[in-house]
Amino acid sequence: MKRMSAALVPPITLDKHSRCPIYRQLYDWFRSAIAEGRMRPGQRVPSTRSMASDLQISRVSVFNAYEQLQSEGYLETFSGSGTCVARTIPDDTSGFVPVRGRKGSEGVITDSGLRRLSARAEALLNAPSEPWLHNLGPFRVSLPALDQFPIDVWSKLVARHSRGLSRSVMAYGDVMGHLPFREAVAEHLSMFRGVRCDSSQILVTTGSQQALQISAHVLLNPKDQVLTEEPGYPGAHLAFTAAGAELIPTAVDSEGLVVPEINRRGRHARVAYVTPSHQYPLGMTMSAARRMSLLQWAVRSDAWIIEDDYDSEYRFGSRPIASLQGLDLHGRVIYIGTFSKVLFPSLRLGYMVIPKDLLPPFRAARDAADIFSSTFYQVVLTDFIGEGHFARHIRRMRMLYMDRRKELVSAIRSQMGEILEVIGAEAGMHLVALLPPGVSDLSVSKEAAKIGISAMPLSSCYLKAPKRGGLILGYGGVGRSQIHDGIRKLRTSVRTRAGV
Amino acid sequence: MKRMSAALVPPITLDKHSRCPIYRQLYDWFRSAIAEGRMRPGQRVPSTRSMASDLQISRVSVFNAYEQLQSEGYLETFSGSGTCVARTIPDDTSGFVPVRGRKGSEGVITDSGLRRLSARAEALLNAPSEPWLHNLGPFRVSLPALDQFPIDVWSKLVARHSRGLSRSVMAYGDVMGHLPFREAVAEHLSMFRGVRCDSSQILVTTGSQQALQISAHVLLNPKDQVLTEEPGYPGAHLAFTAAGAELIPTAVDSEGLVVPEINRRGRHARVAYVTPSHQYPLGMTMSAARRMSLLQWAVRSDAWIIEDDYDSEYRFGSRPIASLQGLDLHGRVIYIGTFSKVLFPSLRLGYMVIPKDLLPPFRAARDAADIFSSTFYQVVLTDFIGEGHFARHIRRMRMLYMDRRKELVSAIRSQMGEILEVIGAEAGMHLVALLPPGVSDLSVSKEAAKIGISAMPLSSCYLKAPKRGGLILGYGGVGRSQIHDGIRKLRTSVRTRAGV
Repeated sequence: MKRMSAALVPPITLDKHSRCPIYRQLYDWFRSAIAEGRMRPGQRVPSTRSMASDLQISRVSVFNAYEQLQSEGYLETFSGSGTCVARTIPDDTSGFVPVRGRKGSEGVITDSGLRRLSARAEALLNAPSEPWLHNLGPFRVSLPALDQFPIDVWSKLVARHSRGLSRSVMAYGDVMGHLPFREAVAEHLSMFRGVRCDSSQILVTTGSQQALQISAHVLLNPKDQVLTEEPGYPGAHLAFTAAGAELIPTAVDSEGLVVPEINRRGRHARVAYVTPSHQYPLGMTMSAARRMSLLQWAVRSDAWIIEDDYDSEYRFGSRPIASLQGLDLHGRVIYIGTFSKVLFPSLRLGYMVIPKDLLPPFRAARDAADIFSSTFYQVVLTDFIGEGHFARHIRRMRMLYMDRRKELVSAIRSQMGEILEVIGAEAGMHLVALLPPGVSDLSVSKEAAKIGISAMPLSSCYLKAPKRGGLILGYGGVGRSQIHDGIRKLRTSVRTRAGV
Repeated sequence: MKRMSAALVPPITLDKHSRCPIYRQLYDWFRSAIAEGRMRPGQRVPSTRSMASDLQISRVSVFNAYEQLQSEGYLETFSGSGTCVARTIPDDTSGFVPVRGRKGSEGVITDSGLRRLSARAEALLNAPSEPWLHNLGPFRVSLPALDQFPIDVWSKLVARHSRGLSRSVMAYGDVMGHLPFREAVAEHLSMFRGVRCDSSQILVTTGSQQALQISAHVLLNPKDQVLTEEPGYPGAHLAFTAAGAELIPTAVDSEGLVVPEINRRGRHARVAYVTPSHQYPLGMTMSAARRMSLLQWAVRSDAWIIEDDYDSEYRFGSRPIASLQGLDLHGRVIYIGTFSKVLFPSLRLGYMVIPKDLLPPFRAARDAADIFSSTFYQVVLTDFIGEGHFARHIRRMRMLYMDRRKELVSAIRSQMGEILEVIGAEAGMHLVALLPPGVSDLSVSKEAAKIGISAMPLSSCYLKAPKRGGLILGYGGVGRSQIHDGIRKLRTSVRTRAGV
């Protein structure tokens, strides 16, 4: 048993002008002194009376500090013989003294080289990222025309539901989502996207990224193979990488994912990830023949298809292309969509349509991930859809984005026609402009970011090195004058990096 | 090359009274007929004129349907010789015809036994769940007093920010969270929880469950060991199971996690998950000595500690216990908290405090998971905290929950004193009541659910079989009369199942 030593303590400094109460400062001092070994187990502490007089503070403060320290187990009291540092405190504080480590600016010691993370985390750290693109300047991809959003209508609905916030909206919600909202989504998808589903198959997510993550968790073991379109959506690459999967980049042509490639390379693949309505980022539509071959491949190989139907609301000139999911009689397709691009990104509402027999594992995976999506915005959006604002907004935006696309194409042709080659369908919220061979899209992108332009390099969608670089230019959130100004700035950046 | 056959099509039925336009019905019919092999590749389709006359519909409808089918690649046109089913469509439709499968009620064929999921998904499906507890009746755990929430104040803030919804609040937000909100959280945690941090270390999550999931992904490889408290928090079990980890249940006593157990069983563990302020579900506080030993173990073993500081706002009678994180000089603790229980669950806002050198992988994992949390409620909550409503609400709820706890304890003593034994600290929003030995808490819980009582079985917190069953009774969301009425009903259920 540890000996109780004399009641001598190292000097204590208190700040009487601090916002932090005196008792609390004293408590903090003792806690640190004990944790850092400056006060040892069994060491006696002065009585409240002598401590108060030494420090010229009230005895109540000392008493309160001691009481707290005692209740937390830092101090213990002996019948009749005062108080000491608890003798259960570990005597060996070597664990708290830097050995190999270096002490950082905040006094935190990090034993570098000994801090193991998971293989998933290491893979994610190695995944490409483009932090310089995170400005809100012209051509940011996936950003809708926020200034055209009917905020008045929306905020009236928000205010209405917020005043009458009910117990059921505030409490834990259903893992699958708010039922009236799921019904509205199912109806919309059947009607406009040719999706075969009922509301029981809808899982509300916080966006398409979460839908990808949950799908990856339910369908893939680490090292399982996933067929991805090359080039393809980086967010999907990230989600599959995070699940430990191996990505098999598969060529696309004017009809989408190339089928002989699927059959040749996809023999052991568990999942194919596709964007059939509007290939990301190139924009072509997957042909009927390819869709049917892909479905056959999935049935034959006991594999799954993840259909990401992003941006499908916006096709200019032709009718929307129906979903691949609607062709699937075997429950092999997991369908993903989002409201981030149609309404606004920070809404954080997306959805997936799940084959009925897969509902239990998807439900369980969502529960384990983050339980459910905030009910409030689901309630607001249900009304927004039900009262016709949603359909109206889509129609207005379709016209607007068609105009913006034309404007962007004409700005590129007139100002950069000899440098950039526009490709991609008349759909969506972005286009791809190829750079002259040999020009690095990464360096153009970084150069452009310096003057406030967010031009995503096409190469960031490739897993292998692309033959030719390009820029993915979003036009959803960019007005007419910004388009012309942006292209002028972009021309400067390209000329700087390419010497053209 | 496939021969073009005569223009005979199977009978087509259209519904002229349907909401679905005629062209669309025709399009849908062709799509299905081609996908299901009723129309073969190369088969000729009637001219628009003869089709319109056969079906007695307008020629424009037929034209529109054909055009859409052609643009999607179902039909192709021959110069001068009409239209046929595209000869690129796979001839072999065996993939679309049920072979081994059975056709479900919705016409979806599921080839049972051939539908492989990930090992993670299988593990989640095997995890215990208590769907019968999902009612909002008395004693639901983790449910706060929703009727006491200052909805007026809240909805005024919501309305104010909704009317002035800015571009930056609507667009993609920071992966780590809205900066002013992170500053408010960091200040609150330094002040009230003794957490050592600045705002750069705060990652805003959609609740503590997501914080657990992200931590599991960053820190754990499949099959890595995690020390968990036995009994412990089922949500944490779920998150670690979903990451493929192996759980090592570790005994707790009146001072929290038992240290010799840690050192004996935790030699290869990568993570210890603990609830030091208020053990879940039993309620004791982890002693200072145990905290320091746990930190030493983590430093020695290159392991991590996940501190879940749930419910820490509510301690009755004594001051709040400071966090374990505040003692950690080595950046070994990942600290987790949530607003779900202090404000309301559907808010979906929680936070974690991350050692600085671990910020990049945590950031990447959040990005891969679901990018960021809805900015709007972060903005609202920043004001709610800044204007003092948050602190005021906590103070009011602390008084209320203290009263409710007393009321519940007295109701149990007076009505079920001979059956239930109350344990657990004077803190939080629930207590544990042990059942007589031999009585199954699972069957009592199911019985109680039949009459609208949500009494969580203590055994659901155990990984091994518990020595004695009990009920976890939440009192946060239960008023005085409901408490007495609920206990009366509970007595009936216990008597039915236990014969006492």
